[in-house]
Amino acid sequence: MTQPDARIVDLFAGTAVASWKQNLERLDAIFAAVSDDDLQKEVAPRKNRLFYLLGHLVAVHDRMLPLLRLGARLHPELDEPFIIKADRTAPDTVTPAALRAAWTEVNTALTTAIEGLPSAAWLERHEAVSAEDFAKEPLRNRLAVLLSRSAHVQFHTGQIRLVAKQA
Amino acid sequence: MTQPDARIVDLFAGTAVASWKQNLERLDAIFAAVSDDDLQKEVAPRKNRLFYLLGHLVAVHDRMLPLLRLGARLHPELDEPFIIKADRTAPDTVTPAALRAAWTEVNTALTTAIEGLPSAAWLERHEAVSAEDFAKEPLRNRLAVLLSRSAHVQFHTGQIRLVAKQA
Repeated sequence: MTQPDARIVDLFAGTAVASWKQNLERLDAIFAAVSDDDLQKEVAPRKNRLFYLLGHLVAVHDRMLPLLRLGARLHPELDEPFIIKADRTAPDTVTPAALRAAWTEVNTALTTAIEGLPSAAWLERHEAVSAEDFAKEPLRNRLAVLLSRSAHVQFHTGQIRLVAKQA
Repeated sequence: MTQPDARIVDLFAGTAVASWKQNLERLDAIFAAVSDDDLQKEVAPRKNRLFYLLGHLVAVHDRMLPLLRLGARLHPELDEPFIIKADRTAPDTVTPAALRAAWTEVNTALTTAIEGLPSAAWLERHEAVSAEDFAKEPLRNRLAVLLSRSAHVQFHTGQIRLVAKQA
């Protein structure tokens, strides 16, 4: 691969990163406006509580650190209650305050690392694809993970907005 | 701007287009598996019906054709019932069959045009920004619209999935 024009590559990466940040900031503002009591609301009858979705999103974003090869996880203990187990299948072991702190901590670490990644590095493989498979499937890159997780943020934001106002 | 490396630009654009198509195909499969009767279901009590969200998504995607400067709209008549008016504020004037046909027609036209756009053209301005403003804010490009509307698809997919199974 010859050296690409730096500006065009920066614009592609910059547009994708701006979209990620915008989606995340909107959801962050929504959660910030929800009281701890209201985190117990379900997005629809017998569906996930806001509390569970908050923990779920923290855990999924925490997993993005190694998946994007940006660093080690900060809160692997959240997988069990918020990814492996369904909502309300076990007592809550995390307080709302601790969960909110983890949400901010993980998103800050992740977005800082995302912003520091050189633009062309978005086209490098993500951690879950082998070098051999990646040679055949070059779209399995870090950018695909960012877009997929951005989609995941929006998927749950749509649900959360059913019971929480736009901030 | 010097000529960029074609492959790296294709990979950036290709990853974003693949993400758009994947999100849209998943939602298309979900709608295809919902019966016309079940389109009357609300995603949550007193929230939008699936029927309304289907029409809303057709109208928003139809607007993407001029917004991305890819062509004229196909169904501007859907704005009134599905963007301007809220759900159930007027009798339905479109049948489920007509709405499903418009959904397929619009998405096919849009995705064909999206796939035909040269990679570097994603960094050109979208229709809603003036050339003057775009010179100052180069992230207001076609790619930003694609990512924003991809986010919109996911926002409503999260809601639709509360009452419709993954196909």
